[in-house]
Amino acid sequence: MILTKIMISRKEIKFIKSLNSKKNRLKELLFTIEGEKMVDELLSSNYKIKKIYGKKEWYENNFSKLDLIDFQRISNEELSRISNLKNPNNVLALVEVFSNELDYSSLTGTTLILDSINDPGNLGAIIRTCDWFNVRNLICSKNTVDLYNNKTIQSTMGSIFRVNVHYCNLAEFFVSMNNKPQTYAATLDGRNLKNVKNKKDNFLIIGSESHGISEDLMKFVDEKVKIENISGTGESLNAAIATSIILYQLS
Amino acid sequence: MILTKIMISRKEIKFIKSLNSKKNRLKELLFTIEGEKMVDELLSSNYKIKKIYGKKEWYENNFSKLDLIDFQRISNEELSRISNLKNPNNVLALVEVFSNELDYSSLTGTTLILDSINDPGNLGAIIRTCDWFNVRNLICSKNTVDLYNNKTIQSTMGSIFRVNVHYCNLAEFFVSMNNKPQTYAATLDGRNLKNVKNKKDNFLIIGSESHGISEDLMKFVDEKVKIENISGTGESLNAAIATSIILYQLS
Repeated sequence: MILTKIMISRKEIKFIKSLNSKKNRLKELLFTIEGEKMVDELLSSNYKIKKIYGKKEWYENNFSKLDLIDFQRISNEELSRISNLKNPNNVLALVEVFSNELDYSSLTGTTLILDSINDPGNLGAIIRTCDWFNVRNLICSKNTVDLYNNKTIQSTMGSIFRVNVHYCNLAEFFVSMNNKPQTYAATLDGRNLKNVKNKKDNFLIIGSESHGISEDLMKFVDEKVKIENISGTGESLNAAIATSIILYQLS
Repeated sequence: MILTKIMISRKEIKFIKSLNSKKNRLKELLFTIEGEKMVDELLSSNYKIKKIYGKKEWYENNFSKLDLIDFQRISNEELSRISNLKNPNNVLALVEVFSNELDYSSLTGTTLILDSINDPGNLGAIIRTCDWFNVRNLICSKNTVDLYNNKTIQSTMGSIFRVNVHYCNLAEFFVSMNNKPQTYAATLDGRNLKNVKNKKDNFLIIGSESHGISEDLMKFVDEKVKIENISGTGESLNAAIATSIILYQLS
């Protein structure tokens, strides 16, 4: 028996790897998602899948879910060439960038506002925490790291499918809000977080670790909050960790 | 004027890069620390410095602190070759691994116990949070990621100099404790963290995101605690984030 194998072309490999750059993702409006669990959640999400590259074992367990999706079987070696993971996990999907208008009426509960967060792992971990604490909307400054960066995507551990993420000019966003709810900002000189009484609907602004919250946003803040530095020796907390502690307190 | 430049040798570059592997760090008992802020804190710490490689500007600002330390001036290009950072920051130090005996009498306040934490960025962020909340002792299982991994070191943001980190067999550690304080464990089925009353001295055990806490440690646990999943949709929290939320609550 001759087993014919369709190889993935060099051009295709190059194209998939090119999506590691934000510029190319914006041009192609495509990004990648990897691994069994992530692709499993992708298949039941609203995201449109352009193509799935999977190993034989993956295909055998999932072909019933593929329906009209373009699928290519690839070898272990081919997967390593297109994957961004140290340990590639059976499958990679090419997915269309999802963009929807911000629905102001959906901004209930806590809405998280990120100003200039640079680290993709931090953004991913923040999205994962939002999912846990039922924060459904995340508004990011335009210079916040890209949602579709592969490290961001992978560190959401699937929560990307359950949290709405919007990028906009934050000052304009605040101006456009008619009935802005109580707005908290994480700072080093605010009120001790443990004494903050949560309002049902609220905004929480988190700034970058090095530069804090932009000056032009401070006028929209109703209450500054701080996570008490118990030791007095630590200089700051990781941005994802500070965010998560405050979301815990507000939850 | 002829400016003579002493170049860093290929062999030396290879040696420094070899310290990216744990095996070589254990063999040489050396690791690297990078960047102005980190090296500044290193210089006032108890760690022994083997050699510092720095750019001219760095040397000019710091030569008074160098005393008997072996120093080599290097170019931007040379720094890029030995650095692990995307944006190398003026200086890299070769440092001797610091090992001290665990002092049981120093285990006051909260002592954090990490079981099988794999991600170096997570370990670094945890150490940074410990510093903030005045947790001075961290006991790690032997299979927890190495403290001297460069990603761990860099993500501590200097807190490595203020938190004692010990690696040991955790079950043996518990057996060897005479008066074990109240021991909490983070689980998915414990008591709601918000209702947990803190004891002055306590242990907190955190397990891996995928496998939780090892079965053989559970018998040492007095109270299981959980961070309430408000949405019911998120599947888990990042290990560093879960740790930090609990340390915040216990602080």
